[in-house]
Amino acid sequence: MIPVQTLLDRLAAIGADPPGITREAFGAGENAAMALMAETARGLGLDCTVDAGASLSMRWAGTDPSAAPILIGSHLDSVVHGGNFDGAAGVVAGLAAIAALQAEGFRPRASIEVLALRCEEAVWFGLGLIGSRSLLGRLPEGALDLPHARGGQRLGECIAACGGDPRALGRPLRDPRRIGAYVELHIEQAPQLVEAGQPVALCLANPGNVRHPHIRITGEDAHTGLPHRFRHDAALAGAELALALERLWLDEEAARRPMAVTIGRFHTLAERHAMTVVPGAFEMSLDLRAYEAAHLAALEAKLHGLVGAVAARRGVAIDLGPRSAAAPGVMDATILGELAAAARQRALAPPRLNSPGSHDANNFAAAGVPTGMLLIRNRNGSHNPDEAMETDDLMAAVGLLTLWLAGRAGH
Amino acid sequence: MIPVQTLLDRLAAIGADPPGITREAFGAGENAAMALMAETARGLGLDCTVDAGASLSMRWAGTDPSAAPILIGSHLDSVVHGGNFDGAAGVVAGLAAIAALQAEGFRPRASIEVLALRCEEAVWFGLGLIGSRSLLGRLPEGALDLPHARGGQRLGECIAACGGDPRALGRPLRDPRRIGAYVELHIEQAPQLVEAGQPVALCLANPGNVRHPHIRITGEDAHTGLPHRFRHDAALAGAELALALERLWLDEEAARRPMAVTIGRFHTLAERHAMTVVPGAFEMSLDLRAYEAAHLAALEAKLHGLVGAVAARRGVAIDLGPRSAAAPGVMDATILGELAAAARQRALAPPRLNSPGSHDANNFAAAGVPTGMLLIRNRNGSHNPDEAMETDDLMAAVGLLTLWLAGRAGH
Repeated sequence: MIPVQTLLDRLAAIGADPPGITREAFGAGENAAMALMAETARGLGLDCTVDAGASLSMRWAGTDPSAAPILIGSHLDSVVHGGNFDGAAGVVAGLAAIAALQAEGFRPRASIEVLALRCEEAVWFGLGLIGSRSLLGRLPEGALDLPHARGGQRLGECIAACGGDPRALGRPLRDPRRIGAYVELHIEQAPQLVEAGQPVALCLANPGNVRHPHIRITGEDAHTGLPHRFRHDAALAGAELALALERLWLDEEAARRPMAVTIGRFHTLAERHAMTVVPGAFEMSLDLRAYEAAHLAALEAKLHGLVGAVAARRGVAIDLGPRSAAAPGVMDATILGELAAAARQRALAPPRLNSPGSHDANNFAAAGVPTGMLLIRNRNGSHNPDEAMETDDLMAAVGLLTLWLAGRAGH
Repeated sequence: MIPVQTLLDRLAAIGADPPGITREAFGAGENAAMALMAETARGLGLDCTVDAGASLSMRWAGTDPSAAPILIGSHLDSVVHGGNFDGAAGVVAGLAAIAALQAEGFRPRASIEVLALRCEEAVWFGLGLIGSRSLLGRLPEGALDLPHARGGQRLGECIAACGGDPRALGRPLRDPRRIGAYVELHIEQAPQLVEAGQPVALCLANPGNVRHPHIRITGEDAHTGLPHRFRHDAALAGAELALALERLWLDEEAARRPMAVTIGRFHTLAERHAMTVVPGAFEMSLDLRAYEAAHLAALEAKLHGLVGAVAARRGVAIDLGPRSAAAPGVMDATILGELAAAARQRALAPPRLNSPGSHDANNFAAAGVPTGMLLIRNRNGSHNPDEAMETDDLMAAVGLLTLWLAGRAGH
């Protein structure tokens, strides 16, 4: 067994950046968290290796080298002033499950690998899920040239500096058909389990997304006294677009088509704005997510329609800028059934929920790997300093994972 | 005569900060512009003195020391990346009018003073019209402790560093009853004269304003996946408030109650925002302006109603923060008549317009000084790099000013 609470506390100390936690991807925080996980894994006798994407694999070798390995993965980076559990809880859970199996004297037929995947959070490069994209050959064109939000080093340079090999990242680092399964544990990002009074949920699907990290609206700087008919206010155009997208969301939800819109960056320009200047420039980001590829495509078409209408009405230019996309990730029905059976053995009745967030699991599902996810109760959402996961709830999820692994990696 | 075009070009070189012009108040730009004006004034034989507010007076002594002086004033600071003419054109005009009178062999009975008033723009301290406020004892409580937007030095320290005496600023530096008149020339801030095809307008009134430089909205940071019902998005609350204020403006204009709303700073927080974080904090500024004190009071009450409604609907806190206010400035009817008579002599038919902007003239009008303003045609608004005043239009306004001064300061 490993001291889970102590590990979580040591992770919190590594990332301490009041308020909350900052573990910078490809930076000191993520690197120190990886070192702590590797040290713990070596204590369990696992083989630690770094792949060409600089992600860490911690492998418990199975007795049958021909059996496809079972992967348990998540990430160790966080957003700026985020919480301690988004990502890290899933890596700790993988090691805790292996420790529990070892304590029971279990010997796996198939290898079990715990993955600490690099840079899941999109804040660092305007592109998320980088470790799993690298592993599965799913980095978009030009991704290695993206600059880090802190310091501007290119992604390719960051990967090389952390022991990876960016030249190897054009294609999958391992054959997805030779991966038996991928399972990820992650804290819930909306308090649905808090509402339901349950420690764990079985995830049905993760949303796919369309993202525009750098939308620019260009109007005309002008004086406070300028009459309305002469103005081309870029900030009010941003406000109108934001509220139109919120209206779209509420209408879709009312029609039982789940989705979400997030505009995380929404701002006039610090080097130009002033109380007495009508803003001629505005920037915003957009994350549009849904659970079905066709729905996502329809939403993107509506986005383009709204952008055109607002630009025309206000006499401004709206440049959506770079676009990234991730496919929705539908979880494997067989794994879902096995996890449900494990839950029944533990007298748990986990609800089946869509995940509000995208995860590295999306890339495995998109690559054809049988994929599953468990969501862990968490009171205050994620990406904020107040994430509140109870260690007991994490251990309940570890219990399900352990049972499931015993079935899958056994004989 | 003085070389007006050369003076304007030298001012542009002083402030060059592409795109456009930055002449920082109480900083290098404003100080160098003042030195250039003083050098020019001394060339005309004027007495240059600095008052306790660090503003520059350039005085052509009259023959009758008992006659109340006539003041011609404006300012030399600019916004960041603004234009060359907002403010500076009025100071140059005053010197050009004196030069023209001297060339005609005119000897003033009453002294004529050209004032270069400090820090008219509100961008530097979140409070504008500082030179005229200082001169007339109208600085609000605590103003001397406001920090400069660049470097954070207190206003009182800035005034002292530029040769003023902040301890003397509690009361008027000169008795407003002993000022014969104050006239200001200023470029128009909306292209109303461009529309009308006229070089000059007679100003009827300047708007008063209510300003909140630092409005803060506090919601909750959260993950992109959080369902709408759980969110307290501070940026969308800001968007809703901004569009509600714009709606209020359009409704008032439709009812022929002129006003304006400007939200110049409108932003998520650079140190916290990210594409994948629902913004829990948002900041904005607000400038609300109208031409009648009662209308302004009614608008402020409506602002408070909108703030309460948005905060309640979205479950966020909206803190309006510090408030500053300026009274509307109604121009003197006698001066208006005299300027109209001068225009007829020059075969000009200047329209009578409300000024879109507040000016130092507001403080003189509010102090009971007979006050007038001429607005000069300007194609692209002000507070932006594309201000476009033709020197010929400035000279047309100088012609009116010269005629008027000959009447007022003569005998």
